Amino acid sequence: MKTLPTEDTIVALSSPLGSGAIAVIRVSGKDSLAVVNPCLKNPLKEKDVRRACFTELHSGNPAEVVDQVVATYFQNPASYTGEDVIEISCHCNPLIINRIINGIVQHGARIAEPGEFTFRAFMNGKMDLAQAESVAEIINARSRQSLTQSLRHLEGRLTEKILDIKNDILHYLSLIEISLDFSEEDIELIPYDELREKIKATVGKIEQLIHTYDYGRLLQEGIKMIILGKPNVGKSSLLNALLQKDRAIVSDIPGTTRDYIEANIDIDGLAVQAIDTAGIRETEDTIEAIGVERTLAQIQTADVALSVFEGQAELDEDDQVLIQLMREHADEVKFVAVLNKADQGSNGSTRRILTDLSLPAVEISALQNENIDVLKKTIKSELVSDESLEAEEVVVTSARHKLALEKTITSLLQANEAVDLQASEEIIAVDLRLALDHLGQITGETTPDDVLNHIFANFCIGK
Amino acid sequence: MKTLPTEDTIVALSSPLGSGAIAVIRVSGKDSLAVVNPCLKNPLKEKDVRRACFTELHSGNPAEVVDQVVATYFQNPASYTGEDVIEISCHCNPLIINRIINGIVQHGARIAEPGEFTFRAFMNGKMDLAQAESVAEIINARSRQSLTQSLRHLEGRLTEKILDIKNDILHYLSLIEISLDFSEEDIELIPYDELREKIKATVGKIEQLIHTYDYGRLLQEGIKMIILGKPNVGKSSLLNALLQKDRAIVSDIPGTTRDYIEANIDIDGLAVQAIDTAGIRETEDTIEAIGVERTLAQIQTADVALSVFEGQAELDEDDQVLIQLMREHADEVKFVAVLNKADQGSNGSTRRILTDLSLPAVEISALQNENIDVLKKTIKSELVSDESLEAEEVVVTSARHKLALEKTITSLLQANEAVDLQASEEIIAVDLRLALDHLGQITGETTPDDVLNHIFANFCIGK
Repeated sequence: MKTLPTEDTIVALSSPLGSGAIAVIRVSGKDSLAVVNPCLKNPLKEKDVRRACFTELHSGNPAEVVDQVVATYFQNPASYTGEDVIEISCHCNPLIINRIINGIVQHGARIAEPGEFTFRAFMNGKMDLAQAESVAEIINARSRQSLTQSLRHLEGRLTEKILDIKNDILHYLSLIEISLDFSEEDIELIPYDELREKIKATVGKIEQLIHTYDYGRLLQEGIKMIILGKPNVGKSSLLNALLQKDRAIVSDIPGTTRDYIEANIDIDGLAVQAIDTAGIRETEDTIEAIGVERTLAQIQTADVALSVFEGQAELDEDDQVLIQLMREHADEVKFVAVLNKADQGSNGSTRRILTDLSLPAVEISALQNENIDVLKKTIKSELVSDESLEAEEVVVTSARHKLALEKTITSLLQANEAVDLQASEEIIAVDLRLALDHLGQITGETTPDDVLNHIFANFCIGK
Repeated sequence: MKTLPTEDTIVALSSPLGSGAIAVIRVSGKDSLAVVNPCLKNPLKEKDVRRACFTELHSGNPAEVVDQVVATYFQNPASYTGEDVIEISCHCNPLIINRIINGIVQHGARIAEPGEFTFRAFMNGKMDLAQAESVAEIINARSRQSLTQSLRHLEGRLTEKILDIKNDILHYLSLIEISLDFSEEDIELIPYDELREKIKATVGKIEQLIHTYDYGRLLQEGIKMIILGKPNVGKSSLLNALLQKDRAIVSDIPGTTRDYIEANIDIDGLAVQAIDTAGIRETEDTIEAIGVERTLAQIQTADVALSVFEGQAELDEDDQVLIQLMREHADEVKFVAVLNKADQGSNGSTRRILTDLSLPAVEISALQNENIDVLKKTIKSELVSDESLEAEEVVVTSARHKLALEKTITSLLQANEAVDLQASEEIIAVDLRLALDHLGQITGETTPDDVLNHIFANFCIGK
């Protein structure tokens, strides 16, 4: 598979299509000025670098005014793509956007493929592949922590870690390669015992990084949480209570709606999709097979399940069914027992039965908003087995990166096997070079074209 | 009703909400720098005017990085609103947008109301009311001609016409007012006969402007066109043929889909919503009451109806039903008879019957794309009774403006009645001042607050 050409000049709408005041069209390539200026009443000049210039934009024929726009010229290499870039802010109207893009295409540009601007930034060395991937992660991030990690990747903090590991390997690989050159003279620049320890240390570093993926995956993919319990036990109130804390985050922007059966909540920086198992409500008091089946299906796809009981009352038959279900499926999903209505008292036997399950149990009052924070902490500690990971500055969030790191370890371990077998330096060097190769796939040095194409094709248009 | 305050600093998302690469947040007010800078790693400086500055943006706490952004500072009065304006380009993610807006609000800004940026531009004299209204027209324009007119309004070309009329009235009003001051000395600065002619001339100018509204309304509101005819007569092919011409206009942007039952076509610059009366197809060959009823309902809301026949064949019973319908409803909608399948020949008796209707009739071949241009011209000349209006540089597109112009004429005619009755100059002056008042409502000088509020409330957020 061939990668995209980078010699021509590309254009695309970079802001979303939809109803709004302003749209942004982006042009990149060596001919940016040449394809845009014929459409501007006041053409952009080299001295206008980074200056927001107000001008009339026409179709190429000055009599056919298309819009009044603000155009900004970013001169290479100090631009997003590293090429000459022009950003055009116009009125947000599909007709205007089309006419502007058509005009620019008529003067020699090509409509950009998805992710092509970032692809060029990567090809021109403005960012490595891990940074480029973080751009898509930033746009798709659904929680604060996830956003923070993606931004750190964009800043190049993951790249630093990878380079550190790479330098380790390069160091002893170079010693081995020098030894190879002088093999007839029997000079041993690095004794095998020392080499073995060095490789082990590198493997340790990589393992540490891979370990962060447990947390990184949650950040990247988000968490599915289901809420179980008999009718009127307070599932909806609980969902409301969990939501309330971050109401301000979503309510100020028009167009964001909230579905109280399924809601996205932020649990201490983790994006959690909480699902009130509403469909089960009508059937579960009759312990119908269909109700249980539905619950089981929900359990199988969830990361965590809140089982809600009335903490002030004795457990009834419905509760017993749920408890049985928790016992049977504790291996499949992380259960948290929630003893609701704590404001109405606490029943000793109920509490005892639930704590006997050796599952976490939290007494709350959803209505009075009591202990919701404790519940959130409990949920989080169930999800994040190693909470020290949260303090990690850089976390691996991509399955692709994790796989590349694992392959790097495999090659390093093969190298160490060769060391153990007292194999020739040549054979060890092959494994070490393979390890570097795997590592280079993260930053893009050794990434095959088809993988590159796949990565950027998943970007949105205009980025 | 009170208008919005203009002393505080406002913030809003100006690009659409949705999936995209870039979002634009806009801040306006005297404290723009003060509310944005606390969130920027590299604060904007006064010397950075109009310079696109790349910087990290945080929540106010530098440790909480929210995004990497490009911020541009437009210093008053050289900005859209006439106030200090800051535009922030960030990654398009609702979480990021929310966090940026929240951070700016925490530092003292307020979320903007719909149209509030343009309202401030109006209040600060950056544009008059007619220009401000054209901003919403530009965003909503659905055809080239409509866009062209709205842009001309934004440029102030309608305002020029209004000012010209205003100056006319002011001229003779001032002469009358001077006469009033010297009334005891019996100085007649402008003889009543001359005054009558001058007022008549002004009325003529305004009538000419009102006349353009016939065309302006079509531009602004768009046109509904229905396609009638029995099954297999070629209605869908006709719709396709009408569409093909402007395929390039809509196909390049992702997210624009096309529904072949209802399509937006551009007929020589007019936005036409063409509706294939698909629902009638199954029932009309049995001449069911329900089919005819549906057609009647469509006719009542349409501006133009294409009645499609097979030009090469004899008319059958179905065709006769349609012809009857055309005869009965020719007052309600503009019918154009389309004789399709011209590539298969032309039936003399069919042609005669249809031309006898004294309605325009065009022979075409939808499949062979023959004579489609002639059909379009015919449709257009049915819609635009006075085609010279197309050549008009400025066209009235707003019902509000038309109404104000009509009221201006009413007052001017009242003034002339007073002149005819040899009424006192004082009485004439009252009518002329009323005329100026009506005229000033177009440009916003005399527009009541509730009308102003209504106008801007219909804008989108962020504009």
